[in-house]
Amino acid sequence: MQPILFYDIPFQVVGETWSPNTWRTRYSLNYKNLPYTTIWVEYPDIAALYTETLRIPPSTTLKSGKPYYSLPVIHDPNTGETVSDSMRIAEYLDKTYPSSGAGPIIPAGTRVLQQTFQVAYDHISTPMVPIIIPRIPAVLNPRSREYFLRTREVSFGKPLAEVLPKGEEHTAKWAETKAAFAKIDGWIQASGGPFMMGDIVSLADFVVAGEMHWVRIALGADSDEWKEWAEWNDGRWAKLLANLEKYEGQDNL
Amino acid sequence: MQPILFYDIPFQVVGETWSPNTWRTRYSLNYKNLPYTTIWVEYPDIAALYTETLRIPPSTTLKSGKPYYSLPVIHDPNTGETVSDSMRIAEYLDKTYPSSGAGPIIPAGTRVLQQTFQVAYDHISTPMVPIIIPRIPAVLNPRSREYFLRTREVSFGKPLAEVLPKGEEHTAKWAETKAAFAKIDGWIQASGGPFMMGDIVSLADFVVAGEMHWVRIALGADSDEWKEWAEWNDGRWAKLLANLEKYEGQDNL
Repeated sequence: MQPILFYDIPFQVVGETWSPNTWRTRYSLNYKNLPYTTIWVEYPDIAALYTETLRIPPSTTLKSGKPYYSLPVIHDPNTGETVSDSMRIAEYLDKTYPSSGAGPIIPAGTRVLQQTFQVAYDHISTPMVPIIIPRIPAVLNPRSREYFLRTREVSFGKPLAEVLPKGEEHTAKWAETKAAFAKIDGWIQASGGPFMMGDIVSLADFVVAGEMHWVRIALGADSDEWKEWAEWNDGRWAKLLANLEKYEGQDNL
Repeated sequence: MQPILFYDIPFQVVGETWSPNTWRTRYSLNYKNLPYTTIWVEYPDIAALYTETLRIPPSTTLKSGKPYYSLPVIHDPNTGETVSDSMRIAEYLDKTYPSSGAGPIIPAGTRVLQQTFQVAYDHISTPMVPIIIPRIPAVLNPRSREYFLRTREVSFGKPLAEVLPKGEEHTAKWAETKAAFAKIDGWIQASGGPFMMGDIVSLADFVVAGEMHWVRIALGADSDEWKEWAEWNDGRWAKLLANLEKYEGQDNL
């Protein structure tokens, strides 16, 4: 088969992924053992990718009615289909290539539960948002950095530099984040682990592992903060990355 | 086997269940086709049930450090075990009676996903809280009503009568609630339904169906509001109740 085109957002480390959302699809493509080629698209070029290059509808429409253009997107030259959104991409890959790779990304019957896992994860992990997001611009390339700073200032209602908590407020947010992950860890312990579905890898793991890459990049792999985080919950989150390392590959050709 | 004792909270309709939390366990017991007897406990008597009658630890501990005593609780005279919390009860029943009934309440590998489903459901359905909760005292028996009004005034920070939105504010909350259920409906549609896991019934369905009983009781089964709700999403929520009606039975002896 011809390689699938996978649209990802670059950062200062050439050829590596930082976005938690595109990580979900990179893991998915590798887990399904499908050949693909990454095409790197800086933030300000994503809208034109949708409207001019690929001519596909927006990934979603915001409450304001504005179209929202986001990555990941894949284009599959074998079928001619173009799909946005990591959940829809996972469904497409499972449906189009049912017998490829290590198993389905969304195991049978879990479509709704995988979706609600993401809602719950986002809700529970909210305390880490102000700790992580403001550190992202520093690792982006200049055009994406300018775009990210400008658009996030609008969504947060203030400059990102003011979103990052300082001093005691930072300590409190850090503790809340630690408690949030301890809660998720408790559930995984109750089910046996190591993955969200026990022995079975699924999209839910790619969601959390993608976030752990993003956290490590934002905090810095050599930082004391990441070193501490990696030891939380008996090393649960660092081990998740290690367990999925075989699905991290770049351009599975 | 001897009947399991199932502790439930009564209301003005004798012998029926109104609490969304105890509905989860009533459905679970019937789904597993296990014999049980309901013991009705008014709200102000729940703490003593834990500390004096059953001598079990609180179902959870609040952030303030205070113990929290809640129903459902079951006591299984066949094993001597007493279990609180609908999720732990479901796990206990699946583990202790693996081959009983129509299938596991928590299908293999979905323990974490079932838990996060509840987190997501609670989060998404938040807009209905002020519409439904303030209408509950009217259906409770006097002792539970007084207890409910007093404790909820503390948790909401104002009397329940002031929590219920009026006029345009009510219209807005109603519309938000409708949008929240449309979101969940969209996910079920994408997966095929009719249940959260497709053809397979699981705890997630008992969670939502339990809430639908509670909504119907709070709004009134003959009210225009419930009639409207029952028609949302092509009748999704009324149909869910109908599909699970065979697991509604009282005291499966």
